[in-house]
Amino acid sequence: LSAIDYRVVLVSPRNPLNMGAAARAMSNFGVTDLVAVSPFAEGWRDARSAVGAEKVLKDARSFPMSEALDGCHLVLGTTAARNREIRQPVIDLPDVRAFIAERLPSGGRVALLFGSEKRGLANRDLERCHALLRVPTGKATPSMNLSHAVAVVCYELSRGPSGAATSPASPVDEPTMQQLEDLVSKGLVALERIGYMTDLPKKVQSEKLRRKFLRWRMTRQDAAFLQAFFKRVK
Amino acid sequence: LSAIDYRVVLVSPRNPLNMGAAARAMSNFGVTDLVAVSPFAEGWRDARSAVGAEKVLKDARSFPMSEALDGCHLVLGTTAARNREIRQPVIDLPDVRAFIAERLPSGGRVALLFGSEKRGLANRDLERCHALLRVPTGKATPSMNLSHAVAVVCYELSRGPSGAATSPASPVDEPTMQQLEDLVSKGLVALERIGYMTDLPKKVQSEKLRRKFLRWRMTRQDAAFLQAFFKRVK
Repeated sequence: LSAIDYRVVLVSPRNPLNMGAAARAMSNFGVTDLVAVSPFAEGWRDARSAVGAEKVLKDARSFPMSEALDGCHLVLGTTAARNREIRQPVIDLPDVRAFIAERLPSGGRVALLFGSEKRGLANRDLERCHALLRVPTGKATPSMNLSHAVAVVCYELSRGPSGAATSPASPVDEPTMQQLEDLVSKGLVALERIGYMTDLPKKVQSEKLRRKFLRWRMTRQDAAFLQAFFKRVK
Repeated sequence: LSAIDYRVVLVSPRNPLNMGAAARAMSNFGVTDLVAVSPFAEGWRDARSAVGAEKVLKDARSFPMSEALDGCHLVLGTTAARNREIRQPVIDLPDVRAFIAERLPSGGRVALLFGSEKRGLANRDLERCHALLRVPTGKATPSMNLSHAVAVVCYELSRGPSGAATSPASPVDEPTMQQLEDLVSKGLVALERIGYMTDLPKKVQSEKLRRKFLRWRMTRQDAAFLQAFFKRVK
């Protein structure tokens, strides 16, 4: 069976009780890799130093987003997916294992992004996601508590690999997020050199490139090829 | 499709924040019927009067156990199911919808029992259960936060009816818990009259009867038959 690792990434969490509860929910379902991006400093300190804090929380690290996704092959952002312009595929939580099995047949690391208690994930976070994960809550009370969202997502993933994940073991073939970000940088340089899309702000160029690269389902070889290609553009 | 109603029964909850969080998790997944059995009085008052308390919580009632289960056709107790002498069938949470569909093909009301934060369900609570529901947590951190347990159970149930529940609509055919309890009382009187099992304490007699009645999968007609039968025993 192919091995999938999960990393929970809390983006801008504020409340130490929520962080503690999220860590416990992860532990309940065997997910141990926790990273915080821009946590509210005081809350983060309080959570990690709390008496009885989960080992998951003690071992957790805080990084900028790009480093938080380093080594990940698939990035899923959790969202209520309402009233937003969504550009990525949206996966309902009950279908997530089949989706992961199809995207990472040889295994790999999956990052699960959870937004802040108040605002969820910002657009700049969603830009990093291959797909969005929708927890199918009711219309009457769509908004979940942060740690509850972590609990149900980790529970669903703990149901074990989907039947689709039965390919023979072979090396992981998907580029990591670091490789994709590198490709975005190299691509921007290449665009600049050939004077293509240069009427657009750098930020928009970068978003456009990243969106394509996330969607294309490249192999590592594809990524290496493009990178070499961009480098040769004069 | 057959209609299943769910009732969440919190047994001896203490912490108002947990009760509030449980109510919110229920709301997220469309479960609206909340009953508390012997809640810690102060916590219960605080939870219900909290600013922004869910409607579910405002509408919640507090009852003794027998009334809390009134009108229910199937009672499932949540448990970590370790180090205990278990007499009932144990259902893993991912299988619960298939189990309910098989037990209540024409629909009915299902009570979901959650024990207190510290001790879980007591044996006297487990005695009321047709089956136990096991949330498959890891060995390293088996114990879940109360509201997380409510969240993952309600999430699993919200995945919709299992494929097994495809029988044509017909009237609910299972006795309610009130009818079963009534049958236990009538049965005890009958045992007394015929001098059977009278060497055992009343409590043990009652447990033995209840266990059988829960296991037998009686129809309402069966229950009515037994009741009439007990009444005639002289």
